[in-house]
This record gives sequence, C-alpha cells and structure tokens, in this order.
Amino acid sequence: MFDLAIDIGGTKTLIAVFKENESQPFATEKISTLSDAGFESFVERIVKVSTRLTGGSPIRRWGVCTAGAVNTTRGLLLWSPNLGWKNVDLYGVLSQEFGPAGFIENDCNAAAYGEWYVRPGTDLLGYVTVSTGIGMGIVSEGRILHGSHCAAGEIGHTIVRPGGPQCTCGRRGCLQAIAGGRGLERVTQEKLGISLATEEIVNLSLIGDLRFKEIVSDAADTLGRFVANICDIIDPEILVIGGSLGRNDHYFRLVFESAMQAYYPLPGRDLKIELSSVTPSSNILGTLILARQYGGVLGGSESN
Amino acid sequence: MFDLAIDIGGTKTLIAVFKENESQPFATEKISTLSDAGFESFVERIVKVSTRLTGGSPIRRWGVCTAGAVNTTRGLLLWSPNLGWKNVDLYGVLSQEFGPAGFIENDCNAAAYGEWYVRPGTDLLGYVTVSTGIGMGIVSEGRILHGSHCAAGEIGHTIVRPGGPQCTCGRRGCLQAIAGGRGLERVTQEKLGISLATEEIVNLSLIGDLRFKEIVSDAADTLGRFVANICDIIDPEILVIGGSLGRNDHYFRLVFESAMQAYYPLPGRDLKIELSSVTPSSNILGTLILARQYGGVLGGSESN
Repeated sequence: MFDLAIDIGGTKTLIAVFKENESQPFATEKISTLSDAGFESFVERIVKVSTRLTGGSPIRRWGVCTAGAVNTTRGLLLWSPNLGWKNVDLYGVLSQEFGPAGFIENDCNAAAYGEWYVRPGTDLLGYVTVSTGIGMGIVSEGRILHGSHCAAGEIGHTIVRPGGPQCTCGRRGCLQAIAGGRGLERVTQEKLGISLATEEIVNLSLIGDLRFKEIVSDAADTLGRFVANICDIIDPEILVIGGSLGRNDHYFRLVFESAMQAYYPLPGRDLKIELSSVTPSSNILGTLILARQYGGVLGGSESN
Repeated sequence: MFDLAIDIGGTKTLIAVFKENESQPFATEKISTLSDAGFESFVERIVKVSTRLTGGSPIRRWGVCTAGAVNTTRGLLLWSPNLGWKNVDLYGVLSQEFGPAGFIENDCNAAAYGEWYVRPGTDLLGYVTVSTGIGMGIVSEGRILHGSHCAAGEIGHTIVRPGGPQCTCGRRGCLQAIAGGRGLERVTQEKLGISLATEEIVNLSLIGDLRFKEIVSDAADTLGRFVANICDIIDPEILVIGGSLGRNDHYFRLVFESAMQAYYPLPGRDLKIELSSVTPSSNILGTLILARQYGGVLGGSESN
C-alpha cells in the first residue's frame, strides 16, 4: 500500500508516492502538465505514472494540490487561470482511479499546511510563495483558512501600486507584476531592454550592478511591505517564505529587512519570518499529510 | 437582573445595561475615561455608574471591550497605548465587582463580532473601523481570529507609504497617518496650514474645494487599496466599514470605489463592502453578545 501526493503546476506536475509511515517519498516523477491537451488526457497520464511508481500496489490515501480556487469540501477545482480548467470535478474523477480516500486542496494552502506540520504547536502560520507568481496560505489552529470564496491568500493580483508595471492579468501594479519572477523579468525588459531569467537578474543586483539593484530592491521592498501588512492583519506566530525566488538568499534578506521596518512592532510581538526548508516541497508534504488526515472524510462530501 | 456592556475608549467610556433578552439598551451613560487618573479610579467610577443604571439590581452577565491587545482567555489587558495601561488584570478586578460571568475583548474584535451577529450565517467577516485611528477585527465561522500575539487587525500603524506623513507613533507613512481622522487633520495642517476637524475637511472636499479634495482622495484611495489587500488576503464574505469617519457617506463611497478597483475580481467572487449600521454601536452589541455567550466560560480561564 502506498500514499500518493500530486502537485499540479502550470507547466510541470510532480507525482510522489510514499510508504505508509514515511514523509520522504519512496519515488517521484515530474511530468509536463500539458493542460491544453485537456483534463482527461492529464488524468490518464498521472494514473499511468502513479501505477508505474507504485509498481501497481493499491493506493491507501491520495491527495492532489493545484493552483486556483479549490472547493475542498465539494472536491471541485472551481477555476485555474494557469491550467485553463474550470469547474472540474477533480475529486470525483480521481476517486474513480485512486479510490475514495482522497483530498484536494489549493497548492498554497497545502504548502502552508506542510509548513505548519513541520512546526508542531504553531498557533497561526502564514506562508507566502514567490516564484513566477505570488500566492499565500494561512493555517489557524491547525485549520486552513479558505476564505468565503475559496480564495483566501490570492494575493498575486491585488493592486499595490496603481498605474505600476503591466501584469499578465491585464491590469497594472499587481503585487506579482512588481515582486514576482515574471514581473521582475518584464520590468527588466521594459526598463533596460534586456531579456534575462529571474535568477540572473537577482544575481546581477547582488554583485552590485546598480541598474539591477534598483529593480530588485524595489521588488523586494514592495513585497516586504506587503508581508508586513499581512502580519499586521492576521498576526501570525510565524510567516514562512518559499518559492524559487522567495528562497533566493539575497532576495529573502531584502524582503525580510523591508518587512521588519514596515510592520508594527507591538510590545511582546516578535515577528518571525522564516525561509521554507521542507523537502521535497511544502506543497507535496502538506498534500500528503492532508490526504492522510482527511482523505475521503472531507473530499467530495458536502458535510463541512 | 441586567446584562452590562462597557466600551472603554481613549477619551470616553460608554456604559450600557440591557434587560435579559434585549439587545437594545435599557439605559446608557457616557463618562470621561480619564485614564491618567489610573485604573483603580476608573473602576470605581464605572461601578458607580453601572449601579445607578441598574438601580442596584444584580448583574447577570458583563462584558468589557477596549482598544489595545487583550488576552481574552487569560482576562488580561496586555497594553493599550491610548489608555497608557499595561498588563492590567481586567477580568480579575472587574469580576470582583460584577461577578465571575464576564468577558473581555479588544474593541475592534468585539465590533466585528457585533457585525457578524447581525448577519447570521456569514462565513468570514472583516470589520474595519476608521475614526481618529484605524483598527480591524476578523470573525471566521463565528470565532474571533485573535492572532498569535492578540494583535490580529492592528492595522493602524502598518506602513503603507515609506517616508509618508508623520504618525503619532513616531514613524512615517502608517495607514492611519494617511487615512485616519487624526492623520487627515495633520496632513491638512501641514499642507495647507489650516487647523480643521476631520468632518470639516471631508465636507470641504465634498463641495469641491480642490485642495481638500486632493487630501481626502489620497486618504480614501490609500485606505481603499488596503481594504482590497485585506480582502485578497482573507477573502471575507462581507467587509464592514464603521467608525465616525468610515461611516461618512462621502468618505465611504471613495474608499469603496478604490477597493473595488484594486481587489482581484475572481470568477464567482462578489466583494461585499457594507457600511456599519448597528445601534447603539457594534462595539457594545458585540461585547454584550460575547458576554452572554462566553461570560465566565473563557474570561479569566487558561483553558482555551
């Protein structure tokens, strides 16, 4: 018997299988999501890979996380701009393949749960992920805060600078248009006419190139202030930052410094901002643990 | 038998007594808080007024709300910058006067609870109050989100514009230094050299005086964007705005319009921003209901 955790990303999907009592994977495989090919084709491919990874052994518990609005209790993927899928009965279809003991969740919520799981006893935890885009999850007293439209933590497209840089969503000044990876790349292209990958831009700023330093400082400072705003709104015990750009040492340090300057230092409040260090990823760990705790209990039911 | 709800403000304290099954007060009295005279003198005065209002009848349930960080489960007022009181055993002292069936809470949290109470079935509600300063409370599935340091919703001093207007807290660019009543007055004084009350400033902007219009628009726009950020972070079903400035029709409309432009309009999400209309106030109603539901159960105990 194996447990299965799947993280559906916009371009890549990570499939991980676990032995019953382990939280490090027995085997993993990354496949292209190819969401344009449709949901049915995607399901066929993940079933095939999962079967290969488990050697055909039965699945005990399974969990799936994905970007977009997920109604966990009804088992529905309401919409996902990255995948282009809408109102997909994710639990219903996957439970026919993997059995009823499954659970689906938004990827940032699952990741927040994974971060919470490795910090037992944490009262309120916020998780901000920064890679191509920016997202967030909140766990309060061991429960994920989903929000009233399954959209809590959808912070990537909140406007922080009216008239600011153009965003992929068509609006201007979204948080991720300034402080996310794609935003950094686009701003660099527009300001300097140079097409570079996020990591190169951050590295060039680190070695002191003032043109890049200005762009990266503005990005990190904007994100740091937003992180401070989050902390003043929900007052987490710990705020974890993850994602490929968020985990970049230099970028993290800049974000951290900006947040520390902007938050309200109440007496007795010691703001803890930490770097994610969960392996293979907080998304996968959170999905696994949620599947083990709630697989088949909440997913697909209307009860909670 | 009467129920008692007290709202301790920085300058005024409202004392309200209620018949057992009623939510409109039987009698109210407003007294000066005079916090400089000390906590003991304050307690003496509120006991005297309460006894007069109830005609000496016993108190069934009592509740007290106040600005500052309140540890509801331990019954402690941790600190209150407005009152200058620190680590006061509010529940302990007041339970000796009014009996054990009491409850203490932060005023914005109590107000959020009051707003939630008049909107039964609301999943997640945020309440933002704008008067001299700016504060906030969150109620999720009928429970107040206190945060890990009893400081959730302490948004008045989060920095939204580095190097912005001077705040009373000593820093610059705090949310309330731009968008709160005292902030508006100070910015007007500094920019125009005119000393006016908040209401006059808003009224002058409404009748089209461009100098005031610019100041008020900037304030409302900044607050509206922050409200949008809140909504994108916690995804409330309803966001209620209250407070003397927040309830000003003109100011509210400007804040509303700015929030509507800045939030991320997800498919299926219909952002509801409403004006507070609870009487005599959401602070008092929330405090009353909390006292009736939890008086003596949580207050002063270490159990939750």
